[in-house]
Formats: sequence, structure tokens, C-alpha cells
Amino acid sequence: MKENRKPVLDIVKVGGQIIGDQAKLNALLERFAQMDGYKILVHGGGKRATEMEGKLGVVSKLYKGRRITSDKSLEVAIMVYAGLVNKSIVAGLQAYNCNAIGLCGADGDTILAHKRPVGEVDFGFVGDIQKVNTEPIAQLIKNNITPVFCALTHDGAGQLLNTNADTIASELAIGLSNAFQVSLWYCFEKKGVLHNIEEADTLIRKIDKKSYKQLLEQQIIGEGMLPKLYNSFSALDAGVHKVCIGDISMLEKDAKEFTTITL
Amino acid sequence: MKENRKPVLDIVKVGGQIIGDQAKLNALLERFAQMDGYKILVHGGGKRATEMEGKLGVVSKLYKGRRITSDKSLEVAIMVYAGLVNKSIVAGLQAYNCNAIGLCGADGDTILAHKRPVGEVDFGFVGDIQKVNTEPIAQLIKNNITPVFCALTHDGAGQLLNTNADTIASELAIGLSNAFQVSLWYCFEKKGVLHNIEEADTLIRKIDKKSYKQLLEQQIIGEGMLPKLYNSFSALDAGVHKVCIGDISMLEKDAKEFTTITL
Repeated sequence: MKENRKPVLDIVKVGGQIIGDQAKLNALLERFAQMDGYKILVHGGGKRATEMEGKLGVVSKLYKGRRITSDKSLEVAIMVYAGLVNKSIVAGLQAYNCNAIGLCGADGDTILAHKRPVGEVDFGFVGDIQKVNTEPIAQLIKNNITPVFCALTHDGAGQLLNTNADTIASELAIGLSNAFQVSLWYCFEKKGVLHNIEEADTLIRKIDKKSYKQLLEQQIIGEGMLPKLYNSFSALDAGVHKVCIGDISMLEKDAKEFTTITL
Repeated sequence: MKENRKPVLDIVKVGGQIIGDQAKLNALLERFAQMDGYKILVHGGGKRATEMEGKLGVVSKLYKGRRITSDKSLEVAIMVYAGLVNKSIVAGLQAYNCNAIGLCGADGDTILAHKRPVGEVDFGFVGDIQKVNTEPIAQLIKNNITPVFCALTHDGAGQLLNTNADTIASELAIGLSNAFQVSLWYCFEKKGVLHNIEEADTLIRKIDKKSYKQLLEQQIIGEGMLPKLYNSFSALDAGVHKVCIGDISMLEKDAKEFTTITL
């Protein structure tokens, strides 16, 4: 199969609770640095953006639980995501001998987005991804430089935009699937997709489209997990090799305790 | 001469007063984007870091007029330099069709520094440059991606460090002189080096080592300009082709109203 001849690329998206906990983040960075081969890290800002908004007296409005990004909260997002969090991760990875480079979607024009159209509500400076320019990313990777993406894109006309980190990870995975055999790793605080969210030992190790439908029918999948699984199948449909969901330990070489999603 | 066969590279350092003024910054970005050939932009944070410290209640200590970088002021520097200022510049350059990539010294391990040793005073998280890794920078440049460096370096052990932007520009210029014929442009609010700092029409168009000595003897050079000229001659001694000092207009194609420094 032609598929097998593509070089392997791992894209790891690290969740907010890990970003917000320095000890967990260090553990993640150490394991990520040890992963062989080509790789990309994607992160949001965790609670640090909210904390910084608090310190600066910036009040984020919500609409049905979803954040509206005002000019002031965009400014905080740029400072925290692209500054504090991204550069701390890059410096941390360098210390673990991983030659990382921190990027937002404006850097190298890697991720173009357009401001979400105003419908029922104006979500403000939120970007929906239009295009991933894979060439500059592939160039970095092939020079053994590891891109670390924060959750910001740009519109090509000078405007930075806040974009969901899960979506950035899956769009990068889809875009890079042309040139690489991409595995997408959603790394967060739980062991993976659980039958019972309260019990860590109810891990579902494999999900495919058929079992996904059953799980949906049985209403087993929690609300927080729904968009992740939806994104995962979109990514798989678009050529991504596999998607894995689990905690930091899933990045270890012989790890088995996580959820693997395939078509 | 072998020198002439090296590709030309322009390194532009943009000063704090331009960074702090959105209209001036846009004008600078537009002109910089129009410059032909390989180029690099270097910037500090202007007054924005001080403003942000004010908003966050971070008090910077000074020692004989020089800032001491506490952990809190380093955090602000990372947010403002690498976040707000760097990414706004990158997004702005993209809008002018210049494919920029924002970097601090930790990105791609490009600029290694060590924390300044504690002597008479502890300057805190300030980095003195040890080494510029030119290879990843040259790779980006040759792929027609324009690096935009902020005034942060790292120590290779996970610590980001605050480093003077003028020094970053001159160390980049020196390091890249092996592979490029480098011109270093210090772009700030004045026309260049002036005989009389109060009178813009007293511009000194050419300075070489001989006239520099005379200017020093006549005590014509203002205190703010002294380190710039000292850095300039160090850079020239170390292989940089020429150093120019002037305002935004010096980046125009047929500009003549600025100071050129040569050996």
C-alpha cells in the first residue's frame, strides 16, 4: 500500500488541565520529547488565559456556555497562548533535547482562517479554519524541527483569531495526511473514552464507526467527549491514519491504556 | 572578492518608540515588507511591557537606570514581546505579503544565552548571548520565510531570558555574516547620528573608525547613541558588511538621509 510508505507523523494535542499544572506539563513535555520520529504539539491556554483576564479586569462574555472573544480577550489570548504558554513549552522541550519551534497560524502563514460570520450571536475574534499551508510545516518537520502550535490563526489581512485547539490539531492532521501517515493524539486528564465517566476502569480501548453509533444510541458518551469524537471521525474520513485519546501515559512506548479510534 | 558572492541579507532592528505607535509600526511593516531579498526583523517591546506591568501591578526595580528582570517582569516580557508584539507584527507582515515567522531565541534553539552572573547587582532573568545557531535561521531565510525575532533568548535548560534587542540584532548579524553579506539597520525615531541631537538637519551621513574617534573626542555623540555605535563597530569588526542608523524612511529604495557606519 502507498499509505505505508509515507513517513509517520504524530500530532499531540495537550489539554487545558495539563497546561495549567506545571508538574503535569513537565511530565508531558518529557514524554513528548522522547517520542521517536516526526511530531507536532498543539496546545490551548488552559485556565491561564482566564486567570490573566481576571488580573487585568477583562470580563469574558459567554453565550450558551461558549466564550465570546472581545478585542480585550483576544489580546489576553495572544499574550498567554502565543507568549507565556507557547514559549515556556518551547524552552521546556529544548531542555529535553527536542528542537521545538513555537508557532501560531500567522507564522509562516501556516493556518488561514476567517472570522466567524455573525449569526444569532457575534462570537467576536474567533476564527474558523479555511486552509492549512502544509509546505512550511513539512519543511520544518523534515529539518527535524518540532512545531508547537498555539490556538491562534490569522485571516491574512492582519487580524489574529482565536481558534479551538482541538480543531487546529485535527485540521493540521488532515492537511498533513497528504504527505505523512498521521496519528492524532488527544492527551488530557482521563484514560480515554469511558463507559462510565466516574470510573477510570471502564475504559473503551477501541472505537470504530460501528461501535461509535452504538455508543451514541446508548447515550454513553459524555457531552465533553462528543465534539472530540465527532472531530476524530471527520479526521479519519479525511485521511488521518488513527486518532488516540488518553492521558499522558499513552505517549509511552508500550502504552495500551487509552482509546484508539479508527474507521 | 569572495565577499561579493554571498547572498545579501538585511537585518532591521526596530526601536521602542516605533513599536509603541501603531501608525508608525504599520508604516515600518509596509516598508520592511517591500524590501527586496532576504531579511530579518528584530524588535523589543517598547513601552507596552511597562504599560502591562502597570496594569498587573508588577513593579520593576532599576539599578543605575538599568532594569532588573524579576520573575514577574520576565513573565510580562514573554507575554508582550513574544506574544502581543511579535504576533501582531507577524500578522501585519502577512497582510503586506511578507511571509514572516515569529521567533524568540528558544525557537529552533536559535539564540543561546546564559543568565548574567550576579556581580555588584543581580539583574535577574537577563541573558547574555553565548551562541547564535545560524543553520535553522538560514534554512528559513532560504525558504523565503522572514524571521521576526523578539528580545528573548533561552539558556538551553528551560529558562527564557530577557536580552537587549540591539544586541540580538548585532549578534544575529555577526553570526549570519559567515553565509550572507549582512547589512544591519537600526531603525528608530531620529534621522540617524546627529551633530546636535536637537537639530535634525545636523545628520552625519558617514561614520568610519577614524571619524568615530574624532566624534568621541569632541563628545558629540549622545549617551543614548554610544552603545549603538559601540555595537556597530563590534559588528563590523566581526564581519558585518555595513551598519545603518536612521528613521523609517531609510528603508526606502533610494533613501540617503541616514547614517552609514563602515570600518
